[in-house]
Amino acid sequence: MTILITNLSYSIDNNLNVYKDVDILIDNNNIKIGKFLMEKENINQKDLKIIDGKNKCAMPGLTNTHTHIPMTLLRGISDDMILQDWLKEKIWVNEAKLTKEAVYYGSLLGCLEMLRFGITSFNDMYFFSEEILKATKEIGLKGTICYPIIDFGTPEHDNLDKLLNGAENFIKKYKDEKTVKPAIAPHAPYTCSENTYIKCKEIANKYNTILHTHISETRYEVVEMENNKNIRPVDYLNNLNILDKNTIVAHCVWITKDEAKTLAKTETKISHCSTSNMKLASGGVMPLVELLQHGANISLGTDGVASNNNMDILEQMKITSLLHKAHRWDPTVADIDTVLKMGINSQSIGFENNDIILIDLGAPHMRPIHNIKSNIVYSANGNDVDTVIVNGKILMENKKFIFEDAVINNIYNKVNKIVEKFI
Amino acid sequence: MTILITNLSYSIDNNLNVYKDVDILIDNNNIKIGKFLMEKENINQKDLKIIDGKNKCAMPGLTNTHTHIPMTLLRGISDDMILQDWLKEKIWVNEAKLTKEAVYYGSLLGCLEMLRFGITSFNDMYFFSEEILKATKEIGLKGTICYPIIDFGTPEHDNLDKLLNGAENFIKKYKDEKTVKPAIAPHAPYTCSENTYIKCKEIANKYNTILHTHISETRYEVVEMENNKNIRPVDYLNNLNILDKNTIVAHCVWITKDEAKTLAKTETKISHCSTSNMKLASGGVMPLVELLQHGANISLGTDGVASNNNMDILEQMKITSLLHKAHRWDPTVADIDTVLKMGINSQSIGFENNDIILIDLGAPHMRPIHNIKSNIVYSANGNDVDTVIVNGKILMENKKFIFEDAVINNIYNKVNKIVEKFI
Repeated sequence: MTILITNLSYSIDNNLNVYKDVDILIDNNNIKIGKFLMEKENINQKDLKIIDGKNKCAMPGLTNTHTHIPMTLLRGISDDMILQDWLKEKIWVNEAKLTKEAVYYGSLLGCLEMLRFGITSFNDMYFFSEEILKATKEIGLKGTICYPIIDFGTPEHDNLDKLLNGAENFIKKYKDEKTVKPAIAPHAPYTCSENTYIKCKEIANKYNTILHTHISETRYEVVEMENNKNIRPVDYLNNLNILDKNTIVAHCVWITKDEAKTLAKTETKISHCSTSNMKLASGGVMPLVELLQHGANISLGTDGVASNNNMDILEQMKITSLLHKAHRWDPTVADIDTVLKMGINSQSIGFENNDIILIDLGAPHMRPIHNIKSNIVYSANGNDVDTVIVNGKILMENKKFIFEDAVINNIYNKVNKIVEKFI
Repeated sequence: MTILITNLSYSIDNNLNVYKDVDILIDNNNIKIGKFLMEKENINQKDLKIIDGKNKCAMPGLTNTHTHIPMTLLRGISDDMILQDWLKEKIWVNEAKLTKEAVYYGSLLGCLEMLRFGITSFNDMYFFSEEILKATKEIGLKGTICYPIIDFGTPEHDNLDKLLNGAENFIKKYKDEKTVKPAIAPHAPYTCSENTYIKCKEIANKYNTILHTHISETRYEVVEMENNKNIRPVDYLNNLNILDKNTIVAHCVWITKDEAKTLAKTETKISHCSTSNMKLASGGVMPLVELLQHGANISLGTDGVASNNNMDILEQMKITSLLHKAHRWDPTVADIDTVLKMGINSQSIGFENNDIILIDLGAPHMRPIHNIKSNIVYSANGNDVDTVIVNGKILMENKKFIFEDAVINNIYNKVNKIVEKFI
């Protein structure tokens, strides 16, 4: 299908250039922005879908580069708790109850939420990865689905060898998919040995896929490594040759300026989970300014909704800006273009951003428009996303999913049933 | 009109109690929550409006206790700037261009935005107050409209005497209104003399109305007062007998523990403008925990949208919680009930909270529901507000304003015209 969006009030491209009163022509993965495209282009009228762009702003799809979508099932199950209590009393006990089916329906719900909020690509890490991949394909989003590795096992496999085998088989099976990419995720330096990281990176290199891991989220884990191994996490992973352009690390709250430099130099991708870090009170603030000074590649991750409690990247753009301004007593940092760029950085998880979302400019909080990018970053929220086009296919139009209500209701009902057994 | 909301999935009352599967009966300003009200109550069927509450949560109306609604006209006109440059280069030059008509249409737009986001009462401070009051009545919100006083004049009057007279006349004229309350607003200790504060308080006392002022927003103004007068702002205002239960002070970022105690002891109302403070990088964080320990009365203010850039109190509840958790490295502070209470504290600006809003629970980001209050504070945003009932009157239903589209479009068009001359 060819899609022509006509008379757009505004359009923002991947380089954050702004155009007024333009059309957009979407032919599979080719996107053209310009004036009077209907007249100028040789458009196949037969399979043409026309969308009215009046009072709308087109922009690249949003990306969520660190999440655990099945944790959508745990939204709001516990808040305002100390991290260790939260994990032990609420998260781990309920995660242990999760079946394949639960992960599948939790993933469907998570994908729907991301779609509603204009997220067209994401990077996940959770067990029963095959179910997540299946759900992602069904909803139609682009996803890098990372198979998690933990030395002492996950609810999917109770030991490391089975997990490493499982990961390799998963990657082998799905490596030729186009819209979803299988990958591997050693959980964190405090749950995976040196040897585990090395083996994971071997698998990632063998299949040329992404390695996704947590790093320096809490001060505790950094101090523990310094005490036990006399090294800090970034240097530790760098010595193991884990850090390169195919590796994405989440959090990086407790890193030094030297570590920031190392992450930038190795072209490691960084997922900034500002909202989750604030909510869990990880203390400290990821050194965004220093990372950017060294040219680091940064994007935004919502983390699992259990610690957020949504996957709204538009909301997180604003929160990220506020956090860094307040932290540095400097309103000029984390400015509009900086956070917008982070919010659409799908390249960091291996996807070209050739998706288009439309933002509705009809509500009073989007008026007047002195600076459309400001209104999107500071005034809008995820519900202002109106239409979502992924891989040349419309998945949401006029705030309505393309799926039948019965499909949505079935997901909600299944989820309600699944969470009944949670404590 | 009598309104019966049936089969509500959830309802939250003013004391934050949660009810499941109930009805709500609204008869003017009387609200009853219970089961099977249609059967139990003697309802006048003649003028009865029934609203289906399925998949909705009813809660008290939100309140915005510090704002400057005509500044809606300046949304996004400048961001990411140092405070002084921002004020001088962008805000003051454009405010100087504002006519009565501009303030009126800016206020209509601001009221529409608040209505859309479920804010049923607010506290404003801006010149041409009569226009703001008129707009507020037309949209149907409850507003405390404070006439601003600045020693060197405002765009409304160029000298202090005229302003004080204007304020008194304004209060006299509207003091018997029910849904809007005229009040007085000496701007701040750095723009108003001791004598001005004393005269303002005399007027406030004479008509038993609210006095609204800015205090300790930036470190600069506090240090300046300490240098010039050898006293800190809260003690200064307390010595002038300004602080009591009819006074509301905005910001309070740079206050000491002793000042926190004074504010609590004098029963002064505090409007916490967390988002604006972060965006302008005021530095420091209002000592919420200490204020609450002393029993202070705190509510939330968005401040003008030029420094926010919206009036979404649901969003601000979350941001407030995140700010204090991150600031104190403690996830237990600014918990769900604390910020919810702040967000519905209309009593602090003189209005009983007998308004009802419905939150739509139909979107994926509101599922599942382990804790409805958590989903509202941490997962929802202003656009999830579905229906708004103020003073027993429906002003928005199913996300549609009661006003004709032509009325809305006229406001948008007038605003577009007004902002053309901005620089």
